[in-house]
Amino acid sequence: MRKQTRLILALDETDVARAMAVAEAAADQLDAIKVNWPLVLAGGPKVITYLAELAPVVCDFKVADIPNTNRLIAESAFHHGASGNNVHAITGRDSVQAVVEEAKGKEVFVVTEMSHPGGKEFTAPAADQLARVAVEAGATGVIAPATRPERIAHIRSLIGGRLILSPGVGAQGGSAADALRNGADYIIVGRGIYGDRDPRAAAIRYARQAREAL
Amino acid sequence: MRKQTRLILALDETDVARAMAVAEAAADQLDAIKVNWPLVLAGGPKVITYLAELAPVVCDFKVADIPNTNRLIAESAFHHGASGNNVHAITGRDSVQAVVEEAKGKEVFVVTEMSHPGGKEFTAPAADQLARVAVEAGATGVIAPATRPERIAHIRSLIGGRLILSPGVGAQGGSAADALRNGADYIIVGRGIYGDRDPRAAAIRYARQAREAL
Repeated sequence: MRKQTRLILALDETDVARAMAVAEAAADQLDAIKVNWPLVLAGGPKVITYLAELAPVVCDFKVADIPNTNRLIAESAFHHGASGNNVHAITGRDSVQAVVEEAKGKEVFVVTEMSHPGGKEFTAPAADQLARVAVEAGATGVIAPATRPERIAHIRSLIGGRLILSPGVGAQGGSAADALRNGADYIIVGRGIYGDRDPRAAAIRYARQAREAL
Repeated sequence: MRKQTRLILALDETDVARAMAVAEAAADQLDAIKVNWPLVLAGGPKVITYLAELAPVVCDFKVADIPNTNRLIAESAFHHGASGNNVHAITGRDSVQAVVEEAKGKEVFVVTEMSHPGGKEFTAPAADQLARVAVEAGATGVIAPATRPERIAHIRSLIGGRLILSPGVGAQGGSAADALRNGADYIIVGRGIYGDRDPRAAAIRYARQAREAL
């Protein structure tokens, strides 16, 4: 994906027409568009292809299956036009490796921790190990929450020069500046853009925040 | 889902036409058809709807996201005609509960352990806790591997009368009889049926094995 505005739109909008309108309005402010399963279930896998004409698409599929199934999911996501795919490391190194191998140079981001309360039960205690799995499996980078910038700095110390994508900026309370200054390469904004009356103006604001922070 | 033959087909076939032909041939031998993401990405979410006309469909989506995203995925799976959905417990109790609440009486099965080598790294050590999360969140049942029937018996002791669905019968080496006698309610067969030259005859054989084991 490109590295210009440092802004990724989390297109967690399940009204397909509205999602497309938001993406079209904001696209030139975005380094990528992140798409999750609910939008794909609403519009079919062709939404990946449509969105990929506007900006690089990262499928936030959080794949968490055995290696062969992970590989098939990644293969299909890339086939439909995705430039990246997100995978859980909690289902083990071989499951991550299968996606990395299938990516053939496209991007694979590993989920190392999650922001919801249940994320503290099993995944957060393993976050450092999960980041190491990401490195050893050859992933492009990891996902680390903007709501906890000190964790971004810590994860940065574990993964060297790999990329950090940081969700939770905006409606969830994370700050673009704090995330980027602590080592994130990209901020991910969802409702702060697609929930705004003027998504394009909102994207311009977040891109400006990112530019000023760097 | 019905409880007649105790046989669930894992329709891990990504050629949509072939998948439909297999399902049509075997349907009257099946208590359910299990569908995973690769088939949905190949054929679009309408494959769920088509298959649900043949037999109850369990979406083996192994959802592993925050509660709201899990809820949206489950809502869409049920909307497209699924009677059940699979969810990881490793992302925490609230993520499972969100799917159970969205199910409104439909079925939710929790992944407690997986059969691939990477499953031993993080999930297998937590399997007993994950089974307890399934019970406490009010899930319909859990998934437990036929390749390790002693684990089925152990999981049975943890979850009371909840259902156990047991994959790995056939090509992966699990035995229908061992799984059912150790407490599984259903056996899940994939390649042993869809990879057979005569999927209907194969389904009849597995259904007979299940009947004779009980």
